[in-house]
Amino acid sequence: MANYFSSEFTLGILGGGQLGKMLLYETRKYDIKTKVLDPSAEAPCRIACNKFVQGDLMDFDTVYSFGKDVDLLTFEIEGVNIEALEKLENEGLKVYPSSKTLRHIQHKGKQKEFYTSHEIPTSSFRLFENLESLSAAVENNEVGFPFVWKSCTGGYDGKGVSIIRGMKDMDNLLEGECIAEDLIPFKNELAVIVARNPKGEVSTYPVVEMEFHPEANQVEYVICPARIEPEIATKARAVAEQVSRAFGHVGLLAVEMFQTEEGDILVNEVAPRPHNSGHYSIEASYTNQFEQHLRAILDLPLGKTDSKVGGIMVNLVGAEGHTGDVVYENIEHIMAMEGVTPHIYGKRQTRPFRKMGHVTIVNESLSEARKIAEEVKNSIKVISK
Amino acid sequence: MANYFSSEFTLGILGGGQLGKMLLYETRKYDIKTKVLDPSAEAPCRIACNKFVQGDLMDFDTVYSFGKDVDLLTFEIEGVNIEALEKLENEGLKVYPSSKTLRHIQHKGKQKEFYTSHEIPTSSFRLFENLESLSAAVENNEVGFPFVWKSCTGGYDGKGVSIIRGMKDMDNLLEGECIAEDLIPFKNELAVIVARNPKGEVSTYPVVEMEFHPEANQVEYVICPARIEPEIATKARAVAEQVSRAFGHVGLLAVEMFQTEEGDILVNEVAPRPHNSGHYSIEASYTNQFEQHLRAILDLPLGKTDSKVGGIMVNLVGAEGHTGDVVYENIEHIMAMEGVTPHIYGKRQTRPFRKMGHVTIVNESLSEARKIAEEVKNSIKVISK
Repeated sequence: MANYFSSEFTLGILGGGQLGKMLLYETRKYDIKTKVLDPSAEAPCRIACNKFVQGDLMDFDTVYSFGKDVDLLTFEIEGVNIEALEKLENEGLKVYPSSKTLRHIQHKGKQKEFYTSHEIPTSSFRLFENLESLSAAVENNEVGFPFVWKSCTGGYDGKGVSIIRGMKDMDNLLEGECIAEDLIPFKNELAVIVARNPKGEVSTYPVVEMEFHPEANQVEYVICPARIEPEIATKARAVAEQVSRAFGHVGLLAVEMFQTEEGDILVNEVAPRPHNSGHYSIEASYTNQFEQHLRAILDLPLGKTDSKVGGIMVNLVGAEGHTGDVVYENIEHIMAMEGVTPHIYGKRQTRPFRKMGHVTIVNESLSEARKIAEEVKNSIKVISK
Repeated sequence: MANYFSSEFTLGILGGGQLGKMLLYETRKYDIKTKVLDPSAEAPCRIACNKFVQGDLMDFDTVYSFGKDVDLLTFEIEGVNIEALEKLENEGLKVYPSSKTLRHIQHKGKQKEFYTSHEIPTSSFRLFENLESLSAAVENNEVGFPFVWKSCTGGYDGKGVSIIRGMKDMDNLLEGECIAEDLIPFKNELAVIVARNPKGEVSTYPVVEMEFHPEANQVEYVICPARIEPEIATKARAVAEQVSRAFGHVGLLAVEMFQTEEGDILVNEVAPRPHNSGHYSIEASYTNQFEQHLRAILDLPLGKTDSKVGGIMVNLVGAEGHTGDVVYENIEHIMAMEGVTPHIYGKRQTRPFRKMGHVTIVNESLSEARKIAEEVKNSIKVISK
């Protein structure tokens, strides 16, 4: 076992956004050396890592030579050059999560096929090479309205996903490979974060309940624990564990799921990294998701995933009609409320729906936390000067 | 009110040790720009601040010119040039805590006189200009054994404090101004962290109970909440608040106290900054002490000081007989225990009794946490390679 603490061991991180920034709190806590690659000179990770490299995450040579200079490689964003990861793995570097997991996940069609072939419950779907073949299937009544269209490779933060209720909804879709999925009339949208280390130890967090903003298609509240029956929670955690084991995943995996009216759990999609749905854990959990990711990829014992208190997370996204230097209006007002912690990601410029930060509300009583969360949401505004 | 978040506002921090490092987690969380001054090129704060300046904290010009380049100045160590702070304050810079508080605290004689003149309960004492006059008083039976000798200006981590039980204990004391204090046969050694902002809002943390290592005179366990009667806790928190108000303090103040056998609370000494006795708050409290310090000095609303769970802190100090490149033996073993979080300060070299880190143990049950804390203490060792 390597000595990670105050040593020369260096962890490489692909991506320097807010997820990486929060991961760096934990590398600092353990005094683990880090090196970060990000295309932006103003990346939130720029400070707090030991070495920052500016470069293109999708460029083979950039990622490969970055990887040659670290002892273990992880990422905080899926959009990285997989071929470089494969070459690095073949040359003996530990890359966690692995390029193989990433290949399955980066492509939404392959992800769905993976679930089906591993008997992981998911909604029915069909894969199409392009919009033309999808349109043909719709015209032949092989695919019926409504359905969910997903671009296989173009999706992030609501782009690349659309609910198609009729022909006119198909006008402005992204070109390229896509899937058409059954639209699930779900009762709840849930998520479970699961960690697995190279030894094969697996640990799941409590189930969280998600609420999406109707227009921006971004999470508005994440509530932990989800207000669901214990049997549903047990089932959701078991499915998350099944997914992690099926992938032979190392690191954190966020599993987003639907709970149907009938009480079934269907996997929607996964993210192989710390996730928005786990931010509540910084304040609410015994071990936060970023520390858990670090423990997992370093093959350290996994931490306790229970919550100390109830937790709710509200995203801080840029208000509509505001573009420019950011101001967090009423931030002092929300800081006066009980158990409220704002996290400011460090992006200087706001624009509509940009993820600028989040706020966690913790309380012994989850219903009290929910009330305060609503006050928070109604008070703070991310605007421009 | 200034806009601190993702703005050009810059907080200056004098000192770049572990306390500063943990304060930087919070400035990063709020995206507040920081500039740190420390004499060591390997200061734990070197990364994670926006700008690091290497320089002497006791040098007037260094501190003054550092201060001219920031919007607000604070410190994480008391040993700084006070004259420079005074000049900066006179020129309009906000320095929190103020030079006035620091003047009272840096000098242990003045600190005791301050308590007496403000009717703050403290042990009886006498001030001496040098060891010679103390010896004379002892020979004339004006000061009787046992007593506590404290150097007025030379104290840190057990140096500059001695229990004097007879003439031979007086042989190796530091020269210079000193006090002789009654030795209090205390029942408990307690501490209360109190925060006050410029508006005058005051907030105290729950009382913690401290246990010292018999030889190193460093804290071995800090236990929150202290296992004392509620009336004693109420009294201790009231005394801490009284001290903070008397100083007109801004920022965090750690008030160390004795609980006598009779149930009296006597103030021992204070530290005007985040403190070892408040480290448990990172994992156990709704608002940790570093965030609270930041809220206080920025005149933001103070956060909730209650605990989510019971917390115990164990210092990680260098083992005797080990000097050199540090290794944390059995760190993985303790990380497998429930609710255990190591904090590694980032000092590459260990030496006997050097503060290298700390471990927090949190649990719903304080007695369970106490058991785990003992296992932690008996397992982990800070040794050299």
